[in-house]
Amino acid sequence: MSKKGILTVISGFAGTGKGTIIKRLISSYGSRYTLSVSATTRKPRPGEIEGKEYFFKSVEEFQEMIEKDELLEHAQYVDNFYGTPKNFIMNEMDNGKDIILEIEIQGALKVKEKYPDTVLVFVLPPSAEELRRRLVSRGTEDEATIQARLARACEESTEMEKYDYIIENGVLDESVNEIHRVIQSEHCRTFRNIDRINTIKEELKSL
Amino acid sequence: MSKKGILTVISGFAGTGKGTIIKRLISSYGSRYTLSVSATTRKPRPGEIEGKEYFFKSVEEFQEMIEKDELLEHAQYVDNFYGTPKNFIMNEMDNGKDIILEIEIQGALKVKEKYPDTVLVFVLPPSAEELRRRLVSRGTEDEATIQARLARACEESTEMEKYDYIIENGVLDESVNEIHRVIQSEHCRTFRNIDRINTIKEELKSL
Repeated sequence: MSKKGILTVISGFAGTGKGTIIKRLISSYGSRYTLSVSATTRKPRPGEIEGKEYFFKSVEEFQEMIEKDELLEHAQYVDNFYGTPKNFIMNEMDNGKDIILEIEIQGALKVKEKYPDTVLVFVLPPSAEELRRRLVSRGTEDEATIQARLARACEESTEMEKYDYIIENGVLDESVNEIHRVIQSEHCRTFRNIDRINTIKEELKSL
Repeated sequence: MSKKGILTVISGFAGTGKGTIIKRLISSYGSRYTLSVSATTRKPRPGEIEGKEYFFKSVEEFQEMIEKDELLEHAQYVDNFYGTPKNFIMNEMDNGKDIILEIEIQGALKVKEKYPDTVLVFVLPPSAEELRRRLVSRGTEDEATIQARLARACEESTEMEKYDYIIENGVLDESVNEIHRVIQSEHCRTFRNIDRINTIKEELKSL
């Protein structure tokens, strides 16, 4: 069905494993998907490649992108700006690629408001207890940070209903296949196939 | 995700091959699906089994079902009534089965109005010309009947936009997998998982 690419935004609480799902989705079905690359004003870390991890911009360049409406959404974390360049995404979608964009809830809802055809997917942990276990087992955060992340999750959970789909990340491979299935099914949604419908209407009339 | 069964109504122009798709869907993924069995006042043909092809009813029994609101929808063709018994479907859905109901457009829209959670799938031919070829190659209808069916398709095509999904039936196996994928993805729709969402909200609060 519809060959035009679909923009899918994936969000979820910290520690749910959405990053791992996305990596696996790209490695399993890479020919269908393109990962959105963010623009940022933060300095590149050793090994980071321009256009792969990020598009690295000066603050002036970033502000120019905002003014020229070249960003789908943007946000500031600590002292750095992060944003989603529109051009890159639109070109890839015109080439039939489905775009995966991993951003937090407020950004996701802004994107959906501007582009209602966007698919919003929220990744859930099997349980809150399991989420805590995953955060603890990463071993990278102290107890205070873990508590802060759980409090943040509690806050974020009030917005889950605004997403189109939820995926429970229990078994990784199943979650990857579920997200793949959801996005590919979206290609069959009627509103994405109006041209196809109009064509068959015309054909039937002229038979 | 949501374990409750989903009701899917499949429609399409005569000759599109929706019957074949449904048979293949049931034979390929039978453990997930139940085919809705209609009630009818027409007499059983040799070999037809009560509760398999149809629930056979007298006109009085059928009218009682209408009065008691036991039918999801019903219609009259020639001298016979046909309808979709509600109980059978609801029980199967409670048991986690996804229901496949093949009815024409007016019935489908009535069902969706009454039960907005219903998924409406419209099966399209690859082209109007291909539809005509398929009708001709069945060899069961004369030219006048084929013309009438094509005129009917032209009429029906005005309602296609009201469906949730469209599936183009080019390669049978692909269409079957597409419909399967669409229905299974629907289990991840947020509005079908409100209980799940409320549970995790409560869990997060009480951590």
